[in-house]
Amino acid sequence: MDLVVGIDIGGTKTKIGLVDNKGVCLEQTFFRTKEYLQLDAYLEQVKKTCDELIANLDFTPNILGCGIGAPNASSKRGTIESAANLAWKGSVPILERLKEKWDVPMRIMNDASAAALGELMFGRGKEMTDFIAITLGTGFGAGIVANGQLIDGYDGFAGELGHVDMTVGDGRLTGLGVRGGLEAYVSATGLKRTIMYMLSKYMDESRFRNVAYNDLHGEEITQAAEEGDTIALRAFDYTARMMALALANFTAFTQPEAFILMGGLVNSGKWILEPLDKYFNEYLLQVYKGKVKILESGMEGKTAAICGAAALIWEKNR
Amino acid sequence: MDLVVGIDIGGTKTKIGLVDNKGVCLEQTFFRTKEYLQLDAYLEQVKKTCDELIANLDFTPNILGCGIGAPNASSKRGTIESAANLAWKGSVPILERLKEKWDVPMRIMNDASAAALGELMFGRGKEMTDFIAITLGTGFGAGIVANGQLIDGYDGFAGELGHVDMTVGDGRLTGLGVRGGLEAYVSATGLKRTIMYMLSKYMDESRFRNVAYNDLHGEEITQAAEEGDTIALRAFDYTARMMALALANFTAFTQPEAFILMGGLVNSGKWILEPLDKYFNEYLLQVYKGKVKILESGMEGKTAAICGAAALIWEKNR
Repeated sequence: MDLVVGIDIGGTKTKIGLVDNKGVCLEQTFFRTKEYLQLDAYLEQVKKTCDELIANLDFTPNILGCGIGAPNASSKRGTIESAANLAWKGSVPILERLKEKWDVPMRIMNDASAAALGELMFGRGKEMTDFIAITLGTGFGAGIVANGQLIDGYDGFAGELGHVDMTVGDGRLTGLGVRGGLEAYVSATGLKRTIMYMLSKYMDESRFRNVAYNDLHGEEITQAAEEGDTIALRAFDYTARMMALALANFTAFTQPEAFILMGGLVNSGKWILEPLDKYFNEYLLQVYKGKVKILESGMEGKTAAICGAAALIWEKNR
Repeated sequence: MDLVVGIDIGGTKTKIGLVDNKGVCLEQTFFRTKEYLQLDAYLEQVKKTCDELIANLDFTPNILGCGIGAPNASSKRGTIESAANLAWKGSVPILERLKEKWDVPMRIMNDASAAALGELMFGRGKEMTDFIAITLGTGFGAGIVANGQLIDGYDGFAGELGHVDMTVGDGRLTGLGVRGGLEAYVSATGLKRTIMYMLSKYMDESRFRNVAYNDLHGEEITQAAEEGDTIALRAFDYTARMMALALANFTAFTQPEAFILMGGLVNSGKWILEPLDKYFNEYLLQVYKGKVKILESGMEGKTAAICGAAALIWEKNR
């Protein structure tokens, strides 16, 4: 049986799984990325983990290759470039180094682009030729599919939409120092920052008057909204409005049939999705109105990133 | 000899030409669009003009088809949809209607997308797989090429970047009523509006204190800049800054190798291009710095739109 190894490199966890041609993840596991500060030790651990997963199967698979999703990855150069949340600095030739340990076909891609490819091959994008996948976690990631293909960019860095400037002049700084950058507003982190902003702007009573920034978690903000906490409600409304404006602008670019949303912020459900829908249809140009869907990813949360990474290899073996 | 008819439908002129496989326009002419308010009379005139151009040749060509560039054209539906500068209202099934008069292969596309295809096949985009063509005339148009293909969008309306919102909240209205829309700032019209804005903001002496808005022309603004008129210089600087911010944001989308500029505003030369270059490199994300060129179109101004339209058919006959 043909299988592909999917690897999702995150700042906290490295998730690895074995994925079949339907996007089903047969085996999966993870280890903590930060336990391996040296690239070589890290890649040894990757290889060891892959071997263990394969050994766990009750048959001998034919491994077609290894797909990797990672932050700041350049698909064209096979590198990870100065990823803020990873220990390895500068331009890391990760494909070349991993190939020294394991000579199978390999591809790497920005994690959000890999997620988009996963949607295209196995998820809600299967029937579409034009959509944009958006990951709303610590940051804001995007993978763009147009004409039925993933858009890579000249140098493999397309879809860095989290750093699009949403304001002329003043605005919040993103982790990359971009003032007014979208992900400073629209992400799990952005939502937390907006709670702080609402606490500064309004005098409403709120449970968040007793919570420090570093203790704030998305689930608690959702729960507060459910209890009618107006600071939480205002924060969701504000976040949804910024996101709607961004998605309306993005629509003018490639005119997607749908935005497919995934990641932590989507778990806030109607508190973010209902105002998003309202503002999005308000901001959309007339020519696009009623033609652009906002969908939640159909992929299983736990394995979506692994399947997206595996899609890099499956795409070449259709 | 194989030839293609290229038709550029503009609010003022309809330009028609015969284009060979190298993008050379052998014969060309134009007529005034507004003299034909009825679609049927207009299309009769189109057909008649094509016949005359063909008769002018000293050989009998093999006409491969007819490509049309037009504002608000949907490539997927073969229609022009509520174009502000054209007399025909609503959704105009122009391909279907023209085919009744002349049964050759036909395609239609948004004029800026056609221009991008012209650059891809015959111009500076020939060696590139990822670029964005930008037309800076009365409005702001864009055609996006990624992975070596023109991006159409789900419904044929990709690249409507003139209506991207550049501000959160307040801002100028575009012709479509979009507040803060890019083309309200970055276009020949936007430059004129900015002259008015600078006259309101500063008390500098300027020749423009004696010129009414409707009498203002781009060439005069360029000439004023050459004479050191500070209102003109401020207006170019402001326009360039807004454009640089927009292009920096667009880069994060498809990561083009280059932006290829064409249209009236580009004729202002260094007055717009030098500040544009400066601000663009300032606003660009670190990961893109030094990798994105800003180029002027190499196509001859008079025939660029015709060749772009003809590229729609040549693309299918390579």
